[in-house]
Amino acid sequence: MTLPADSAGLPHADKHVKIVGAGLLGASVGLALTRQGIDVWLTDASPTAEALACDLGAGRPLADAGDMTPDLVVIAVPPDVTAHLVARELTLHPHATVTDVASVKGHIRTALRGFVDGGQLSRTDLARYVGSHPMAGREKSGPIAARADLFAGRPWVVCTGPHTADADHERIVELARRVGAAVVELDADEHDSAVARVSHVPQVMATLTASRLNDAPVESVALAGQGLRDVTRIAASDPALWTQILTANSEQVRIVLEEVRGELDTVIDALGSTSGSLGVLAGAFVAGNDGHARIPGKHGAAPTSYATVTVLVEDRPGMLGRLFTEMGEAGINIEDLQLEHANGQQYGLAEVSVLPAERGPMIDELRARGWNVPE
Amino acid sequence: MTLPADSAGLPHADKHVKIVGAGLLGASVGLALTRQGIDVWLTDASPTAEALACDLGAGRPLADAGDMTPDLVVIAVPPDVTAHLVARELTLHPHATVTDVASVKGHIRTALRGFVDGGQLSRTDLARYVGSHPMAGREKSGPIAARADLFAGRPWVVCTGPHTADADHERIVELARRVGAAVVELDADEHDSAVARVSHVPQVMATLTASRLNDAPVESVALAGQGLRDVTRIAASDPALWTQILTANSEQVRIVLEEVRGELDTVIDALGSTSGSLGVLAGAFVAGNDGHARIPGKHGAAPTSYATVTVLVEDRPGMLGRLFTEMGEAGINIEDLQLEHANGQQYGLAEVSVLPAERGPMIDELRARGWNVPE
Repeated sequence: MTLPADSAGLPHADKHVKIVGAGLLGASVGLALTRQGIDVWLTDASPTAEALACDLGAGRPLADAGDMTPDLVVIAVPPDVTAHLVARELTLHPHATVTDVASVKGHIRTALRGFVDGGQLSRTDLARYVGSHPMAGREKSGPIAARADLFAGRPWVVCTGPHTADADHERIVELARRVGAAVVELDADEHDSAVARVSHVPQVMATLTASRLNDAPVESVALAGQGLRDVTRIAASDPALWTQILTANSEQVRIVLEEVRGELDTVIDALGSTSGSLGVLAGAFVAGNDGHARIPGKHGAAPTSYATVTVLVEDRPGMLGRLFTEMGEAGINIEDLQLEHANGQQYGLAEVSVLPAERGPMIDELRARGWNVPE
Repeated sequence: MTLPADSAGLPHADKHVKIVGAGLLGASVGLALTRQGIDVWLTDASPTAEALACDLGAGRPLADAGDMTPDLVVIAVPPDVTAHLVARELTLHPHATVTDVASVKGHIRTALRGFVDGGQLSRTDLARYVGSHPMAGREKSGPIAARADLFAGRPWVVCTGPHTADADHERIVELARRVGAAVVELDADEHDSAVARVSHVPQVMATLTASRLNDAPVESVALAGQGLRDVTRIAASDPALWTQILTANSEQVRIVLEEVRGELDTVIDALGSTSGSLGVLAGAFVAGNDGHARIPGKHGAAPTSYATVTVLVEDRPGMLGRLFTEMGEAGINIEDLQLEHANGQQYGLAEVSVLPAERGPMIDELRARGWNVPE
């Protein structure tokens, strides 16, 4: 993903950005913006993280900023201190748009409304807050893991709220686009319900699956295959962070986990039953197939579809072997194969699935090698 | 993985092998054995699968075998017909060792004992049966997906039984080793309990997680990240096959799923509670961390450990950035970093973690570029 090389043509308002929190997300936003000529100022509770992020080029230390007035403030701190810092920055910078990158949005909105009701925050100030959630992460954390292209092609949820000013909303949409993300507009509740299903509950399921290995003998765990590795990969995540996330989104996560419990009970009952259980179990697996099929390809691409090439193959031993060997020599990657091998006929039909772009070259190559490839 | 090039030095007994079932596993065993000069004969209920596997070099059609007497019979058919075919082959070939590759072992042993009790199978014949489970699979199925190196480095469980003759047991261990697998000896119950935890329950968990996407709006599913993709990848598996597997291992799977339900209830209760819930949730995530940490590296290797290189870095802006840029130019891949950036000192310490093999060259390279790298 190529980002614009400079800030020519940007609205003036986006030229001074303050980032609070120099971890993975904060430093990555900083890296992406500084290389577009935007003036980025960083601050972090950890002097080491702040210094490292600045050294890596994510911005300059806020302490050196003098009387700089930010147009945009990005709060990139742990979820449990986010609302407090959003309120503080809204008050501190009465003309800035303030966003945060926390992974749960409803509880922050609720906390901020509480600050308004309690008189610590004005309603006018709150109108400059736009929650967002860039859905990018890495298995590593901290500024050292930051990358200017961390958000490229990833979803960035911008939360619409009834009292947010349009100009502030647009500024955050622009921020997300500038760092290469794909903007998804959802309100806080829609967002929290969505991430419960696509992120928080999968995290719990991976964790519960991995926990089941604690009582297993070492010979059992040694049988682990790629399936187990994939299902449990995210179970290695930080317990402190996930405890915060689940607590912050407890209502939505509970709804989905109760659905899981219902399905789990159905499966357990079917395993203990002698009649009708096959249909119940098959139904559960089919529902899993269906749900899996709804997940879009990486970066939102449609699932790959293949083109087929039909080859007439003489019906004697070794011919298919020769076909596959020659396709291998020609660098053709076979994605799937259907074979009609009618008894008593002189020819069989091999239907080979390949990536669409490989179809034409494959036909030419096979014909050049003497194979019968009908149109 | 290099396999022995011919059958020189093999016990005579392994020179004629009959494989019943020419799918992924049967054809892969055939491919691995034929290229060692072993005489392999294939049969499959599907003439197309049989012909394709033979064309690909996995063996010769059993119909051409004449009065060939197999020393070893491998049953590689769906689990629900395995016991029946094991019994038939034991009776048909009174001197052969018979093994199967089904993914659940206890119910096959039980069925075979039932055949002995019912008089359809003699106790002497049963003594020549050795259950096994090569834990290799691919996302594709059928003979077209077969590979001679499918088992290389993968676990192959050989089931010990009280009445199995030692010679027959040894022959199956030898088969597993010959195709490059790592032999794991377990009895049928130990095996079934192990695969419930490392394979069958993870499959159910992936399936239940994917099912939760069926009621989600399309904008929610569009937020899918790599975590969800990994957790649900195996939810795309064949419902018919998994229904058979779960039914065959229902007792062990139930035990583990009931543990899951207990943990799930704990998490759901904690989400609905206001006091003490943080500790409960954190405990669940820590248990997941622990379970995940028990999974060995791929092919049984220990988890990778890194070597560290300490670099003295002048404490002024841009120096760390230059260090990382130059390490990138030198092709050094940074796995982790710890930074001591003491205020008021002229130097900071960067502790860079790299793969052990890269440590020496990295030190030389950095010194050549003028960096201060103490021993």
